[in-house]
Amino acid sequence: MPKKNFPLSKVYQLLEPGPVLMLTTSLKGEANVMTMSWHMMIDFTPPILACVVSDQNYSFNALKKTKECVLNIPTVELAKKVVEVGNTSGSKVNKFEKFHLAEEPASKVKAPLLTECYASLECKVIDMKMAAKYNMFILEVVKAWTRPAKKAPRTIHHCGNGVFVVDGDVIKLPSKKK
Amino acid sequence: MPKKNFPLSKVYQLLEPGPVLMLTTSLKGEANVMTMSWHMMIDFTPPILACVVSDQNYSFNALKKTKECVLNIPTVELAKKVVEVGNTSGSKVNKFEKFHLAEEPASKVKAPLLTECYASLECKVIDMKMAAKYNMFILEVVKAWTRPAKKAPRTIHHCGNGVFVVDGDVIKLPSKKK
Repeated sequence: MPKKNFPLSKVYQLLEPGPVLMLTTSLKGEANVMTMSWHMMIDFTPPILACVVSDQNYSFNALKKTKECVLNIPTVELAKKVVEVGNTSGSKVNKFEKFHLAEEPASKVKAPLLTECYASLECKVIDMKMAAKYNMFILEVVKAWTRPAKKAPRTIHHCGNGVFVVDGDVIKLPSKKK
Repeated sequence: MPKKNFPLSKVYQLLEPGPVLMLTTSLKGEANVMTMSWHMMIDFTPPILACVVSDQNYSFNALKKTKECVLNIPTVELAKKVVEVGNTSGSKVNKFEKFHLAEEPASKVKAPLLTECYASLECKVIDMKMAAKYNMFILEVVKAWTRPAKKAPRTIHHCGNGVFVVDGDVIKLPSKKK
């Protein structure tokens, strides 16, 4: 799917609903991907967020060393791959090959974009002070992409043990807030 | 709705999907409530999470001073009240009275439980080191309640500007992970 620039000021609208993400890294030319649900926004513009990547995950080391990643937002059609990626460690397997994940280069980081995901956010780690205690990384989104060919994208939210709730109805209420 | 104890080891299953929350505090006998979407899990057991409460919010001070709160999880039926609470500052108005929010005492903290919400999590602030820089608080859930009378609870996820996506289909895939 061809990608299109997405304004950084609207990135919170993609992450605040709490979708499952696929986090890609690239360490010494070797890319990896993991499934991740523990993230939250911290500020709107520039978009700053926090995420938790367990030090048991193969990606922890790559994130710490390269200070870069891409957060890719899959839709429900990719649910099976999301779980397969989550069930497998990158220490033994090239998950891109094994699960036929199409990738393409990012513009500002070395980690790849996942072509099948409806949005991809290129991120730099800006604070690792909480990495030792909480496995927490603070990220700034430096470039954002969406793939508008993907109509009515329905993301998935993890409820534990492989159970996911899929986006349903959309409602709009009069709000004074962002 | 009568409430029932909910196991702390399963609290992540309520928060990981990223629902909008209603955060209650109580400072010097005066309770307040705000709407909050910026939260994430940090650990499973005991359940530890992070949340961002802007220092522009009236609740920031109460959270900092009392180191206690309750995270209440509303369902779609409460969406109108969720937005009204988000649009109003507790510095001027008693939101419980104005929006007819039923409350009841918690067991381990002074902040009240919201009776209409399908789950309520009593929390203690365990780390405020990131409060100055990121408005971030680290919370431990010390007691959790659900109201099972609420069948098939559908939570809401904020996409910005009063747009919410409501929980839709639930899918289950074979997973080795929590």
